[in-house]
Amino acid sequence: MTQSRDDFEARLRQIGAERYHDLHPFHHRLHGGQCTPNEVRAWVINRYYYQHSIPMKDAAFMSRVEDPSLRRAWRSRIEDHDGTDENEGGIRRWLRLAEAVGLDPDYVASCEGVLPATKFAVDAYVRFVREKTLLEAVAASLTELFAPKIHANRIEGLLQHYDFADDRSLSYFRNRLKEAPKDVAFGLTWVLDHTDAPEKQDAAAKALVFKTDVLWSQLDALWGAYVEPARVPPGAWEPDSGLLMRQAS
Amino acid sequence: MTQSRDDFEARLRQIGAERYHDLHPFHHRLHGGQCTPNEVRAWVINRYYYQHSIPMKDAAFMSRVEDPSLRRAWRSRIEDHDGTDENEGGIRRWLRLAEAVGLDPDYVASCEGVLPATKFAVDAYVRFVREKTLLEAVAASLTELFAPKIHANRIEGLLQHYDFADDRSLSYFRNRLKEAPKDVAFGLTWVLDHTDAPEKQDAAAKALVFKTDVLWSQLDALWGAYVEPARVPPGAWEPDSGLLMRQAS
Repeated sequence: MTQSRDDFEARLRQIGAERYHDLHPFHHRLHGGQCTPNEVRAWVINRYYYQHSIPMKDAAFMSRVEDPSLRRAWRSRIEDHDGTDENEGGIRRWLRLAEAVGLDPDYVASCEGVLPATKFAVDAYVRFVREKTLLEAVAASLTELFAPKIHANRIEGLLQHYDFADDRSLSYFRNRLKEAPKDVAFGLTWVLDHTDAPEKQDAAAKALVFKTDVLWSQLDALWGAYVEPARVPPGAWEPDSGLLMRQAS
Repeated sequence: MTQSRDDFEARLRQIGAERYHDLHPFHHRLHGGQCTPNEVRAWVINRYYYQHSIPMKDAAFMSRVEDPSLRRAWRSRIEDHDGTDENEGGIRRWLRLAEAVGLDPDYVASCEGVLPATKFAVDAYVRFVREKTLLEAVAASLTELFAPKIHANRIEGLLQHYDFADDRSLSYFRNRLKEAPKDVAFGLTWVLDHTDAPEKQDAAAKALVFKTDVLWSQLDALWGAYVEPARVPPGAWEPDSGLLMRQAS
């Protein structure tokens, strides 16, 4: 039976309550101030790969949308990340965070030291959006529903516990607090408008679960590679490499 | 042997001189004022499918570009077609042309009457950009090198021969005269910068040939279906259907 609009929205929100990566121990460690500088750096390096792939994911979505008005509504997501004439964009803001934690932003932007497991998870998300239905693609984006809380916690936790944290280095998160609500309001309405059958509701819920897996598995990989006892896989960032010269000297 | 930059550019331009669709008899007929109103309408309906697919093609390209700066440079193509807050965009301009020739713009935007052969050709282009190398995708866009001449001829020919033609209905072409040179300058430089081996030059040339085929075959289909003796395939637009009420009454 098709769930009511309210019940189905509650079902989607419950997925976040149970599976969103704010529950992952790495985030408790990060926001609680227990991460070493190199753990923070490893997070910044790996999360960059996700950031830099998100506009590719959004372009993959737009490449399948025949309706110009839906493409127009979606395009602002790419602008928010890649930037415009007036807005430097999330990717450049993330590289400022990289610099603030002592990493060479060119090294981070090269994606050279990213964990293979991070790439597999993020690439799976881009491929998912390229191949699944538009409904599943939009539903997968709804983890943004749960992002404002984690961003607010993160800003508070980082400011409290880490010297590198200030308005400049954390501007990525402050901007997402402004940008994400507009995207998610659009996406949620779109999903609720397009789930008028039980199988569509199931597909949308499954897509959101998939996306929580994409986020969670990145933190598992980070923990396994960089939290003591660290087991850095071949080719991934070695702590204390890839630093800015002024830090390394 | 790798051709010099100048020789290779000349080779690309020669492809246009021999194969660009300004040479197709349908365009001679259109620009020379020999098209019937219904032939013009059939052209407007079918060309709309190309227009509405081009941002999907450009998004497919961006979905494969890892470099945020290349994505930023490419994004303006989508804006030119889909529109921005300040610019209504090429697709809306094309629908104005549809209205001017007596068609219901909602009918045209529905893509219902588009010839299957048009769809196959255009969809092949989107798929090409999704699947081939970035070099081949950019090279395929270089038919824009040859577009200013055809747009200028078209504006002149349509104004001279058809009552519907005025500044408002032809604004699509006037805008392309402004927009295309910036895109093609970027694309040509990019292709010349990335063809430092004979096999890359061959691949780029072949991609441009492919694109000329995409454009040419759309006009072949149009001619076969709508120029006397017309053979409209099942399901495609029937002359005198899909008109505005004020025309049909």
